[in-house]
Amino acid sequence: MDIITSALARITPVNQSLIAQAQLKLDNKTKPPGSLGRLEEFARRMAAISGVMVPDTSKKVIFTFAGDHGIVEEGISLYPSEVTAQMVFNFLNGGAGVNVLARHSGVEVRVVDVGVDHDFGETPGLIHRKVARGTRNFAQGPAMTREEALAAMQVGIDLADQCKAEGVALVGTGEMGIGNTSPSSAIIAAISGLGVRELTHRGTGINNAALENKIRVIEQGLTLNSPDTQDPLDVLAKVGGLEIAAIAGLVLGCAANSIPVVIDGFISTAGALIASELHPNVRDYIFAAHRSVEIGHRVMLERIGAAPILDLDLRLGEGTGAALAMGLIEAGVKVMKEMATFDEAGVSH
Amino acid sequence: MDIITSALARITPVNQSLIAQAQLKLDNKTKPPGSLGRLEEFARRMAAISGVMVPDTSKKVIFTFAGDHGIVEEGISLYPSEVTAQMVFNFLNGGAGVNVLARHSGVEVRVVDVGVDHDFGETPGLIHRKVARGTRNFAQGPAMTREEALAAMQVGIDLADQCKAEGVALVGTGEMGIGNTSPSSAIIAAISGLGVRELTHRGTGINNAALENKIRVIEQGLTLNSPDTQDPLDVLAKVGGLEIAAIAGLVLGCAANSIPVVIDGFISTAGALIASELHPNVRDYIFAAHRSVEIGHRVMLERIGAAPILDLDLRLGEGTGAALAMGLIEAGVKVMKEMATFDEAGVSH
Repeated sequence: MDIITSALARITPVNQSLIAQAQLKLDNKTKPPGSLGRLEEFARRMAAISGVMVPDTSKKVIFTFAGDHGIVEEGISLYPSEVTAQMVFNFLNGGAGVNVLARHSGVEVRVVDVGVDHDFGETPGLIHRKVARGTRNFAQGPAMTREEALAAMQVGIDLADQCKAEGVALVGTGEMGIGNTSPSSAIIAAISGLGVRELTHRGTGINNAALENKIRVIEQGLTLNSPDTQDPLDVLAKVGGLEIAAIAGLVLGCAANSIPVVIDGFISTAGALIASELHPNVRDYIFAAHRSVEIGHRVMLERIGAAPILDLDLRLGEGTGAALAMGLIEAGVKVMKEMATFDEAGVSH
Repeated sequence: MDIITSALARITPVNQSLIAQAQLKLDNKTKPPGSLGRLEEFARRMAAISGVMVPDTSKKVIFTFAGDHGIVEEGISLYPSEVTAQMVFNFLNGGAGVNVLARHSGVEVRVVDVGVDHDFGETPGLIHRKVARGTRNFAQGPAMTREEALAAMQVGIDLADQCKAEGVALVGTGEMGIGNTSPSSAIIAAISGLGVRELTHRGTGINNAALENKIRVIEQGLTLNSPDTQDPLDVLAKVGGLEIAAIAGLVLGCAANSIPVVIDGFISTAGALIASELHPNVRDYIFAAHRSVEIGHRVMLERIGAAPILDLDLRLGEGTGAALAMGLIEAGVKVMKEMATFDEAGVSH
C-alpha cells in the first residue's frame, strides 16, 4: 500500500485565500456581482486548486480506462464482454462518443487498458497497463485481490503524476467496461448502507426481468463477500472493478498533484467515491460533470458533496459528460482571464 | 403590420420525418440507444428545423440588442441608464461576458442599437437600427406606440433574413438594457395572468425595499395601460421594450427562415414568448439556453414549452447563456456527424 500512502500524504487543502482573491477579481469584471453563477464558482475553484489565479487551460486530458468484469457471466448486461475490446479500438480510431465530444471541447483522450480480457499486442496509441484480464465474478467470490486493486489504483496515480509533469491543467475521467454499472451499484450500496434496489438501474438498457436479476446478483455478491464498509479499499477489491480502481487512483493522484479532476458519470463517480472516502480533502479537487440517468448516482454525488454541472440525461460513460463539462469549466476560467474590468471598459458601477 | 404578417405566413411546421430518420441514424452509432440523452434531441431537432440531416454548424451568430427603458426613472434598477451605452462599447471591444463566452463557443457576436438613449454617431462595428432613444416610462403611459414596437420587430426579422442569406446555422439572442427585467416581468404577468410578485426578481441585484418598489411600479404600469392580454403586440408595445421587440422579431424571423434559435435568459425569453404567442409553430424552432435565476423565467419557459439546456445560476443576460448552450447543441450535431456506426467500428450489437 506504499504508493497509496505516499499519494495520500501529498494531499493538502486547496488554497482558500485564492478563492477570496479570485472572487474580488471577478467582482471587478463588467457584470453585476455573482451574475455568472457557477461559471464564477468554476473560476474560483480552478484558482484555489491549481494555486494559480488564472491557470493556463490549454492542456486538458480525459483518461478512458477499460476493464472487463467477471460478473457479466450472470447475465447482468445487454452487451457481451467482447464489446469492451472492440470499443477500445473505436476510441483509438477516434470514432466513439468521447472522441467526438473531447475534440469539440479541445480535450485529448488517452485510452488505458487496465483490465480488458483481450490481448492487444503492440496496439499503437493504447496505454498498456493491464493488471489482469478482467475481474472475477463477484457473485461467486471477490472481484479482485487487494493487491490487484492497489495495482490498478497505482496506474491512475502514475498517470496523474505524469499530467503534473506535462502541465495538464484539467483532467477528466472516463471508462469502458461491459457490466460495470453492477460493481458501481455494489460500491455505493456497501458505502452508503442503502438497499441495492434503490441504487441499481438499467445500465445500457436492460428490461425489467434483467434488472431484477441484476439486483439479486449484486445483493448476492455483497452478502457473499461482506466487504468491510469502513475500509474503502476492501469494498473496491471485493465488489469493484479494475477501471474503477484506476479512476480512484487517478482522482487521488490529481488531488496529490493539485490538478482539478472532472468525474464523468455513475462508474467514474464510484471510483471518485473510493478516493474521497480515503482522504477528507479529495472532494475539494473534484468537479462532477453531470447527473447521470443511473439512480444511484445522486446518492454518490451527495456523499462526495459535489453538485453536477450538467443534466442532459446522459448514460453513456466513456468520459462523454466530462468532455462537455470541461468546456464549461474552461469557460469560467476565460471569464476570469478575458473579461474587461469596469475601469478598463469605462463602465459605471 | 405588413412585414409581421408576411413573416408569420412563411412559418411552417418543422420536418417531422427527419426527426425519425435522425433517430435511426443515431441508433446506428456506437452507443446504447438514447444514451446520449439530450445531445440526441439536439441533433434530431437541428435536422428537423434546418431540413438537413447534418447541418453545417460552422456559422453561428448571437445578436445582442441594446435598448433603454423609461421605467428606470422609477428607481427599479441598481445601475444608471448610461451603462447601456457604455456596455455597447464594451461589446464592440470584445470585453464583455458574451464576447468571452461566444469566442469560447466559436460564435460571432453582432451588436444592434435598436433603442439606446445615446448618439453613437459613426461607431464602427455597431449595427445601427435605432427606432427610438429608449422607451417611455410604462408606469406613466405606454412604453411604445404599436408602430415603434413593430419597427423594432422588423429589425429582428430583417437580421434573421440576412442570416438565411449568409448560411448561418444557429442564431442566439442576447440583450443589454438597464431596467429590462421590469418590462419582462410585466409581459409574462400580462400573458400568464399570474401576479407580478410571483414573476418579479432582483434583476442585477436590488435589495428587498427596491424589489417591493419594482413590484409596485410594474403593477401600476399594468393597471394604467391595461394591455389586451389576447393581443401579444399590444402587450409588447404597452409594457415591453425595444430590444425585447427586436428579439421577438428575430425569433419570428428565424422560424420563418427555418433557422434554429437559442434564447438566452429572462429578457430574451420575454421576446421569444411574444413571438411564440403569435404563431403556434414558433416554439418548434426555439432552444432554451438555460434556467435563469429570475423567478418568472420558469413560467415563461413552461408556456413556450421549452426545457432549459443549462442550469448554472446565470443572470447576466447579453446572450451569455445562449453562447454556452450553442456549444452543446453543436456537440449534438457532431455526434450525428462524427461518431462511428457499429458496422464501421466493428462493434457487436
